[in-house]
Amino acid sequence: MNTHDSKKAPRLRERDFIRQLAPRIAAPQGSPVPFGDDMALAAPLDYLATTDMLMDGVDFESEHHAWRDIGYKALAVNLSDCAAMAAAPISALVAVALDDRLAQPQIDELMTGILACGQEYGCPIVGGDTNSWSKPTVISITVFGKPPTRRGPVGRHTAEVGDKLYVTGQLGGSILGRHLRPKPRLALAIQLAVKASVHALIDISDGLAIDADRVAEASGVGIELDEALLPAIIHPDAERLAAQTGRTPLEHALHDGEDFELLAALPTWAGPGAQKLGLLPVGRVIAENGLWIATAAGERKALEPRGWEHLA
Amino acid sequence: MNTHDSKKAPRLRERDFIRQLAPRIAAPQGSPVPFGDDMALAAPLDYLATTDMLMDGVDFESEHHAWRDIGYKALAVNLSDCAAMAAAPISALVAVALDDRLAQPQIDELMTGILACGQEYGCPIVGGDTNSWSKPTVISITVFGKPPTRRGPVGRHTAEVGDKLYVTGQLGGSILGRHLRPKPRLALAIQLAVKASVHALIDISDGLAIDADRVAEASGVGIELDEALLPAIIHPDAERLAAQTGRTPLEHALHDGEDFELLAALPTWAGPGAQKLGLLPVGRVIAENGLWIATAAGERKALEPRGWEHLA
Repeated sequence: MNTHDSKKAPRLRERDFIRQLAPRIAAPQGSPVPFGDDMALAAPLDYLATTDMLMDGVDFESEHHAWRDIGYKALAVNLSDCAAMAAAPISALVAVALDDRLAQPQIDELMTGILACGQEYGCPIVGGDTNSWSKPTVISITVFGKPPTRRGPVGRHTAEVGDKLYVTGQLGGSILGRHLRPKPRLALAIQLAVKASVHALIDISDGLAIDADRVAEASGVGIELDEALLPAIIHPDAERLAAQTGRTPLEHALHDGEDFELLAALPTWAGPGAQKLGLLPVGRVIAENGLWIATAAGERKALEPRGWEHLA
Repeated sequence: MNTHDSKKAPRLRERDFIRQLAPRIAAPQGSPVPFGDDMALAAPLDYLATTDMLMDGVDFESEHHAWRDIGYKALAVNLSDCAAMAAAPISALVAVALDDRLAQPQIDELMTGILACGQEYGCPIVGGDTNSWSKPTVISITVFGKPPTRRGPVGRHTAEVGDKLYVTGQLGGSILGRHLRPKPRLALAIQLAVKASVHALIDISDGLAIDADRVAEASGVGIELDEALLPAIIHPDAERLAAQTGRTPLEHALHDGEDFELLAALPTWAGPGAQKLGLLPVGRVIAENGLWIATAAGERKALEPRGWEHLA
């Protein structure tokens, strides 16, 4: 179950819906992937699958975005879910409900974007379902993946107290343009699984704070971000956006969505290797449940796990 | 690629779209499933997958249909695609864009219908994506399946000249109510694969004539229906509907959609066994391309491969 709810959607109701649904949905027996992670186990102990539905006017704006970018992103967000489980993509299915008013060149651009992304990340489109209607375009993509090691997929529920936390890149302000061309961290995720025995992974789709909180909740642990480390994770776009919004660059780095970097919980021994791979340290996994910032003064402050949609 | 285009959709444009797309979409190397069948090969020589997107006002009418029926049918049509490949379902992902105006009990009914169908046919829902928006509800379901024998999946492209053709039940007039509760012919399809070495299968979702033509085209053969056999395949609902529409019951049996029975091409030796399974003979596979009816007078008449949406 992918829990990337939509920007303009009534978020709480959906989260309630997913919570209600969880006990009614049986994960396959012996499944190493509990309900609610970035991908589901499609077949026992074997393949993983994820699906993401994007709606025009909610997840993208066809009046402002190029159809090629929309198509690219529609697949890329699914591939980011693969990265979030350290899964190597195998293939994808694409279902669309095309707005009747689309002209053939626009449809071509949409498909070209999807195919370009698939080619870039080694994920062939093997089928789908084509429909059209008089409403805004809906794109629903399903991606299959395979864990890179016999240890199986890397979930968000397996962070351990004492783990060090890293992000795979700077965060914030993606809305200024980067959000249109997400770079799913597939290769890096697989390296982290193979070389660093990464304990837990999630992709930062809704914001570092909210996605870190998801790891904490799923793992039954707490997460403490280190205030002294946070300036290094602020993306230059977060600075530029802060100049427009009046918020601080750090607020944008903590709460903006659609960066599609990864948050990784690594065993202590893997730290030096992680930094060689370009990962940025942000904190640690602690026993006390919740999401926290450790201040320079040695205090522990609660950090609200809110995502970007509440910033608007 | 599932080619069940939508009732009100501009059908030709979509077919053109799929034809244009086909050469740009690479089936995995060594794939026994060419592009355009009911399911795609998700992983080389192993799992199959299919996806179907249903839109409110196009594929169902929430003003007239119960949400529980809508949910049931949304999964059942995907399971019918499994039957069409003689694949045993493994699991499903459900992505929804829910109309903002839906109340919680309606959402519950929708999910209850999906889960009930999954339970009935042994297909657990393992994940999905939940969204809401201010437009009509869209439901996109992806089902994974596995071929029942080492021979692999049974496609629509492998009918052979000389094969006998059967349908798994009577046809026509499903719009009078049966279309709301499709009974995907999963068990029968697997029996046909295991016991009768079925050569080719398709589910009759858009009408016998159009779906038979798809088998003929994909297999590079012709299909000849036997006029003398056709009265036996007319469903009583086709008779009732004919009384309202002024068309003949046979026209409804040949051209109505949403029966979700199977059309099977069997080797001659398997005929007696097929009839024991309750299959109804309808004709044969011939060398001359196209779709034909063999009349009682010994003539061969062309049959137009049109589906139900042109009857309105």
